[in-house]
Amino acid sequence: MQERTTVKETVQALVKSTESASTRTVAAVDLGSNSFHMVVARITDGHVQITDRLKEMVRLGEGLTEERLLKPEVAERALACLERFGQRLRGFAPEDVRAVGTNTLRQLAPNDDFIQRAEAALGYGIDVIAGREEARLIYLGVAYGLAAGGERRLVVDIGGGSTEMIVGRAFLPSLRESLHMGCVSMTQRYFADGRITAKAMQRAELAGALEVRPVRELFRRARWERAVGSSGTIRAIASVVQAEGWCEDGISAESLARLRTALIDAGKVSALPFKALSEERRPVFAGGVAVLCSVFNSLGIAQMQVSDYALREGLLYEMMGRHQPGDVRERTIATLCRQFHVDQEHARRVEATALSLYHQLVKPWSLDNLDYPLMLAWAARLHEIGVMVAHSQYQKHGAYLVRNADLPGFTRQEQALLATLVLGHRRKFPIQEFAALPQGVQSAARRLCVILRLAVLLHRGRSVDSKPNPLIQVEGETLTLSFPTGWLVSHPLTQLELEQEAERLAASGMVLRFG
Amino acid sequence: MQERTTVKETVQALVKSTESASTRTVAAVDLGSNSFHMVVARITDGHVQITDRLKEMVRLGEGLTEERLLKPEVAERALACLERFGQRLRGFAPEDVRAVGTNTLRQLAPNDDFIQRAEAALGYGIDVIAGREEARLIYLGVAYGLAAGGERRLVVDIGGGSTEMIVGRAFLPSLRESLHMGCVSMTQRYFADGRITAKAMQRAELAGALEVRPVRELFRRARWERAVGSSGTIRAIASVVQAEGWCEDGISAESLARLRTALIDAGKVSALPFKALSEERRPVFAGGVAVLCSVFNSLGIAQMQVSDYALREGLLYEMMGRHQPGDVRERTIATLCRQFHVDQEHARRVEATALSLYHQLVKPWSLDNLDYPLMLAWAARLHEIGVMVAHSQYQKHGAYLVRNADLPGFTRQEQALLATLVLGHRRKFPIQEFAALPQGVQSAARRLCVILRLAVLLHRGRSVDSKPNPLIQVEGETLTLSFPTGWLVSHPLTQLELEQEAERLAASGMVLRFG
Repeated sequence: MQERTTVKETVQALVKSTESASTRTVAAVDLGSNSFHMVVARITDGHVQITDRLKEMVRLGEGLTEERLLKPEVAERALACLERFGQRLRGFAPEDVRAVGTNTLRQLAPNDDFIQRAEAALGYGIDVIAGREEARLIYLGVAYGLAAGGERRLVVDIGGGSTEMIVGRAFLPSLRESLHMGCVSMTQRYFADGRITAKAMQRAELAGALEVRPVRELFRRARWERAVGSSGTIRAIASVVQAEGWCEDGISAESLARLRTALIDAGKVSALPFKALSEERRPVFAGGVAVLCSVFNSLGIAQMQVSDYALREGLLYEMMGRHQPGDVRERTIATLCRQFHVDQEHARRVEATALSLYHQLVKPWSLDNLDYPLMLAWAARLHEIGVMVAHSQYQKHGAYLVRNADLPGFTRQEQALLATLVLGHRRKFPIQEFAALPQGVQSAARRLCVILRLAVLLHRGRSVDSKPNPLIQVEGETLTLSFPTGWLVSHPLTQLELEQEAERLAASGMVLRFG
Repeated sequence: MQERTTVKETVQALVKSTESASTRTVAAVDLGSNSFHMVVARITDGHVQITDRLKEMVRLGEGLTEERLLKPEVAERALACLERFGQRLRGFAPEDVRAVGTNTLRQLAPNDDFIQRAEAALGYGIDVIAGREEARLIYLGVAYGLAAGGERRLVVDIGGGSTEMIVGRAFLPSLRESLHMGCVSMTQRYFADGRITAKAMQRAELAGALEVRPVRELFRRARWERAVGSSGTIRAIASVVQAEGWCEDGISAESLARLRTALIDAGKVSALPFKALSEERRPVFAGGVAVLCSVFNSLGIAQMQVSDYALREGLLYEMMGRHQPGDVRERTIATLCRQFHVDQEHARRVEATALSLYHQLVKPWSLDNLDYPLMLAWAARLHEIGVMVAHSQYQKHGAYLVRNADLPGFTRQEQALLATLVLGHRRKFPIQEFAALPQGVQSAARRLCVILRLAVLLHRGRSVDSKPNPLIQVEGETLTLSFPTGWLVSHPLTQLELEQEAERLAASGMVLRFG
């Protein structure tokens, strides 16, 4: 094996060739169930300076039908907003924009084409992230906005369709949960007719307590010292209780109780008398108050500080770290390998060979994307992760784990790509699974998989002996591997495996030659 | 909670009520890809005395079509054999007969009804076991037949469609593998026309070496001190090399090499000149020799001892241990819980409540089967196993793991039942998954699942406080839970959860009342 066989060197070489200056302007977009947000920031030497903020209350969550499709009028409202965001982003390089979707997009039926249309309107890819990943990013954003400190924090964020609760210290979350309740969904369920009765409020709070219940003990035992709330719901509640003179700073339990009584006294949404409440917020305010009341009661919160930072700031913070030594995804993969007792020495040998083959193929196969060598290296490190479940069909178990695991830093699409590489690393080439990936990555994914398969094949004997690095020639869909003279003759097992591999790749339209 | 809340006490009470005397006559049936075997034995105070052995070379493996269905003529041959076995077993209690199917039945398409027909012909249930479970049982059988000793043993068993290799010491296997090659499949692939050329032999051996290759280093590093072969193929080879005077005891590497040369010299199956070779064995002998040659070469075996014991003796040995303190399944569950970091204190509390509810329901719901309290207890211990994958939908991840994991001591059907209980322990009652279980257990499985759900529900708060043990009344499909007076009013969350549970159970036709 020659130069650039570690993923770090490979990525650094690619970064060098694309890097422009030490200042980048980046943007983060958050497609929430209640509002869409965008922040633009300049990053200079690791400092983030926010230069622009946009927000529109799209109420995407309202538009989800029972069949988990988006109602046309809501979809149009959302697309119009994304087009406006897209105009502001014109000229940004793809790696400088990160857009994520949360609860409503997580629930969307796979046959709804809204995400593709949204990507077209925005002009950039949209990552759908899991609830616990959302919790992690919110915590990062909030932590970024707080003074440095060693205390343990509880962070609560009430979205339109989900509520995230996190406990952490400094930049490291230790507990992350995403609960199935939000200001939009709670309003729809208990205050749909616009009336606010004592009974409806009680039932809404009870439903909220039920959601918190499975994790209540965990959070109580985590002994956090300070509670911080983020999100529009919590900021709106803080504005109201402060404007009414019930509380001086943040939200106290007592002021929240007074607010609750005032809501019931008003009796209906249209009669809420608070000057600090915006008309936009009014329709989902009662549901939001019910969610916050159940969180305060369940976790015994006396006082909550309010932060202006949230998911989108977490995204910005993380964009600084991507493709850098501290990439959180690198740590995630290492943890997963440890948890599932992967034979790491073997995996590292496969990784080195895979990256060495990648290096030969990056140009002819147009694989020069910053994430590709990372994905290839991570798939190599994870390819045997399913063995802990069972040896038989372990590539399938591994793919299941990678697709479904809670992987901090990864988007769902990235997990799907990694899972497909793990599935395809041996035996039949899984043509259908590649066809199920987003169109833009299908061709690259298939090629990365061929590279991984060859690396695994060359190490099938699991010995520590170094392997010959075959020279590769590419012509269209034909791949020719040239081994040192006489090597294949003295390694008949590898020769037989290459013959079998040629048969398997033929099914995907690829021709493998060797000699 | 009152008496009998541990699984041990519950099972012992059931065992006491069914036990007849200290001597049992038991039978083990092995539906292999080449032969069907049956052994009958008397068990007295932990000693096994074999009283009868039957064997028929059914060659089930030959009958598998490309669509993984059994050819009718082969199915008839197999059913006729099982009817004969069944006659011998008439009058045996179900718990005294254990019948297992291996490679060919593992491969059978789910829509082939052969297994149901086979169960009808035999008169007893048939468990299909995974390859590594087969390896474990073979090792147990062989270990049972060997003198006690502290040395590390390599055991090799060549079946019709798979070859098992195990390393272990005394009764404890440490490495278990099941490879996709056997005397029937190797013969079909390389000697189908009855000719034995040097080239075909070489290609067959190379294919065999390729199968061993991924685990070769593991077995070499395991430093076994003695190699033992079991199975008809290996016994036949030993008879031939000894009868020809090439070896005095077992099989030496040198004698195997002479046998290989003699096969090629003979040139065809019909011309094999060995007196010690039975006419029944002759058609699959060349494939068997090729498999053994590749195992000898890959693992560097110089001398192999031959054992008459195998899978069926392993089954007998294990039947002594089932439902006893040393039940291997108990150890398997403990290992799995450790590997996946299950919160064992919580799981144990759920288990105790589940068994206490079971105790009230065992009569009215006809759940008096030795395995049911075990399955319920194990499902309780495993119900949160999926959390290590991800918290979201963890019941699905848990079910996937339990269904696919390599679980020593469990049959595939038992794994399917456990997996379905884990899947159904919360959220929607999975009606379809229960309908996919074997008909005989569907009703009991649904009832066990209802018990597990209630136990989980009562412990949702995860506190260590003791829970009230509701009194249960059953009338048809209506279940009425009576809590101590006032308890539900002071626990509104549990009340709300019971309301939700009543709605979910209604979907399965069950009525839940409480007060």
